[in-house]
Amino acid sequence: MTAQAVAQINGPRLLASLQALGQVGALPGGGVNRLALTDADRQGRDWTVVRMRELGLRVEVDAIGNIFAHLDGAENVAPVMMGSHIDTVRTGGLYDGNYGVLAALEVVATLREAGKTTRRPLTVAVFTNEEGARFQPDMMGSLVYVGGMPLIDALNTCDVDGLTVGTELQRIGYQGTAGVGAPVVDSFVEMHVEQGPVLEQMGLQIGVVEGVQGISWTEFTVQGQSNHAGTTPMAMRHDAALVAAQVAVYARELSARIGGRQLATVGALQLSPNLVNVIAHKAVFTVDLRNTDSVALAQAERELHAYTQQVAQAEGVQITSRSLARFEPVAFDPMVVDLIERQAQALGCSHQRMPSGAGHDAQMLARVCPAAMIFVPSVGGLSHNVREHTEPADLLRGAQLLLQVTLALANRTS
Amino acid sequence: MTAQAVAQINGPRLLASLQALGQVGALPGGGVNRLALTDADRQGRDWTVVRMRELGLRVEVDAIGNIFAHLDGAENVAPVMMGSHIDTVRTGGLYDGNYGVLAALEVVATLREAGKTTRRPLTVAVFTNEEGARFQPDMMGSLVYVGGMPLIDALNTCDVDGLTVGTELQRIGYQGTAGVGAPVVDSFVEMHVEQGPVLEQMGLQIGVVEGVQGISWTEFTVQGQSNHAGTTPMAMRHDAALVAAQVAVYARELSARIGGRQLATVGALQLSPNLVNVIAHKAVFTVDLRNTDSVALAQAERELHAYTQQVAQAEGVQITSRSLARFEPVAFDPMVVDLIERQAQALGCSHQRMPSGAGHDAQMLARVCPAAMIFVPSVGGLSHNVREHTEPADLLRGAQLLLQVTLALANRTS
Repeated sequence: MTAQAVAQINGPRLLASLQALGQVGALPGGGVNRLALTDADRQGRDWTVVRMRELGLRVEVDAIGNIFAHLDGAENVAPVMMGSHIDTVRTGGLYDGNYGVLAALEVVATLREAGKTTRRPLTVAVFTNEEGARFQPDMMGSLVYVGGMPLIDALNTCDVDGLTVGTELQRIGYQGTAGVGAPVVDSFVEMHVEQGPVLEQMGLQIGVVEGVQGISWTEFTVQGQSNHAGTTPMAMRHDAALVAAQVAVYARELSARIGGRQLATVGALQLSPNLVNVIAHKAVFTVDLRNTDSVALAQAERELHAYTQQVAQAEGVQITSRSLARFEPVAFDPMVVDLIERQAQALGCSHQRMPSGAGHDAQMLARVCPAAMIFVPSVGGLSHNVREHTEPADLLRGAQLLLQVTLALANRTS
Repeated sequence: MTAQAVAQINGPRLLASLQALGQVGALPGGGVNRLALTDADRQGRDWTVVRMRELGLRVEVDAIGNIFAHLDGAENVAPVMMGSHIDTVRTGGLYDGNYGVLAALEVVATLREAGKTTRRPLTVAVFTNEEGARFQPDMMGSLVYVGGMPLIDALNTCDVDGLTVGTELQRIGYQGTAGVGAPVVDSFVEMHVEQGPVLEQMGLQIGVVEGVQGISWTEFTVQGQSNHAGTTPMAMRHDAALVAAQVAVYARELSARIGGRQLATVGALQLSPNLVNVIAHKAVFTVDLRNTDSVALAQAERELHAYTQQVAQAEGVQITSRSLARFEPVAFDPMVVDLIERQAQALGCSHQRMPSGAGHDAQMLARVCPAAMIFVPSVGGLSHNVREHTEPADLLRGAQLLLQVTLALANRTS
């Protein structure tokens, strides 16, 4: 660490807290299952609230179950907020979300121990149902918090068993009284594991996240005609599988042609009847397009759709599509991004600016205040996987950076 | 009919026999299920043998269950054989196989009624397990008959429940005593529905089948690496789905480039984990290549394999393959093919020479005697389908042609 570090986070304490929370809902053989609003989620929340109170923080729960832990500043103004989520997917890892919450609590603990009071108050947030693995949409808690979704709609959302967010929140004791929809926040920083391979493969320690990619998911259905593969001349075919394959190849070419940060993936594809000697009469497949540039993303969508119609016509098949998801790109606040970059530089961390490929609560907070994110490397890029892992040195380096960034935000005069 | 028709087949009788046999193993709503060596197959065989005996034919069953019905000729020489099979796939139609057997029986019935005795004897054959839907390989009865597979191996073949051909043949009472492996046959003609769309789409009445395509079935397995579709840059991907798609597109291009009768089909494809936002780590797919030209077929196989290695290397994935089936093309006998063509011409039928895309008992008989096939149109090209259909007029025209061809073969002096 350089002389810039005014206080050192307690590394063993942070790692121990990650392991302790990771015991709640632990899966045999590793990983964790704390689906939102289950008993395991309640136990994780209880553990976190105890930890918040031990740190002398004032804990508040809002009407959608978001938990906020407040530490007063020298001035009674809008707080600098840090945080993330502690719900997981069904077979999740120990760091996704949890690291952002526990690193923020470690920052607060370190500042209290060092006797540092910041100008602005600090708040550590735990947002409800970020994963969307049980109740859709994902990022529900932060979305409701910033006024992006009516509370009543969120509370009425059902899981596959017909249980609602509202009844489950009450059942686990986390439907609070604090209001939602009009938060007053100075700024927001979310610490997170990258969930991708970029930092590891480039040998970098810190990702300065300047935005979240826009996402366009489309499902295409090709309707052709089944026929015997041995008796149907090539010129008489209406092969749904061929058209699906042509679009998959085109998607890769499209990403290269548009360039920049355009991603394109055909991850799911189902043929019918899916037999070696029968021409497929039906193909259902998905195309996942992402870009940080909204104009380029829309261009990719247009060109993809035009191509699908062109190849469908050439093969004499019908192709239809439906949108599965569509999110515009989010640009984080340049002031916060610059500040993260300068603090990473000051700490001597290797770093680069990068987009987030996945959605995060920070993109919801960005609607109401300056916000940005910090990434640390994920081993092998594994995410939503019990083998998700980040090296301890990276976890500690990230938490120290979060402390520096939080201090700079909370004490800034501009 | 022209003056060439020495006797007219009895159309209503032929159609009635197709309907009657189609009642055995009939499926609700249409179609038939007479898997080889089931009770339904036994009932179909019993019905057919009764019909053979009613026609005064001498019935013989061999050690693999093939049924032969003999009609003496003026000379005690090798017989002209007609026939096909009466087993079906699980959801089959009324004509595949059955038409070849019942048209042959109608030919014999007509000749007897007309008091015509041919120079050579006539034999109507019903071959065991042509479909291969329960016991593999398909065309088993004719293969054993011509000595292409040891009898003991065929009898020991198991179905999915562990039942063998031998025990099932005994159970249904059709393991006969006639020998197999060294047949003495003058010539063989098989009448069959096309099982493809060519004749219908070209508006032709008769297909003069001059051979059976060679078949090459290969299953490819691509092993790449799963990663998040939103966080993995395009240049860092090892996408199994992309490589599968590239090969599917290449297969179509390959068929066009090789031209002639080269067919190429990717009919089956399975991705893992098959999710919209995960790059596939695995793709398993099949390529079905067919050609009447063995040199061109081998060229197609070589070029396909070379391409798979090339694209796998470019994407940084592994690709492996295994052969699922490989049959060389079969050329039918020019004497029999010419004779069928001349008789079709004489009857005033529109016709063309064509290959068979599917396998047939005739290709086994072609190993031991001059053989060929006659096709009639299939509506919509549907095959192995309860909606398989051939128009009555086409069925009758084909049977009349079979009669003319049989007479010409049985009475020829060369």
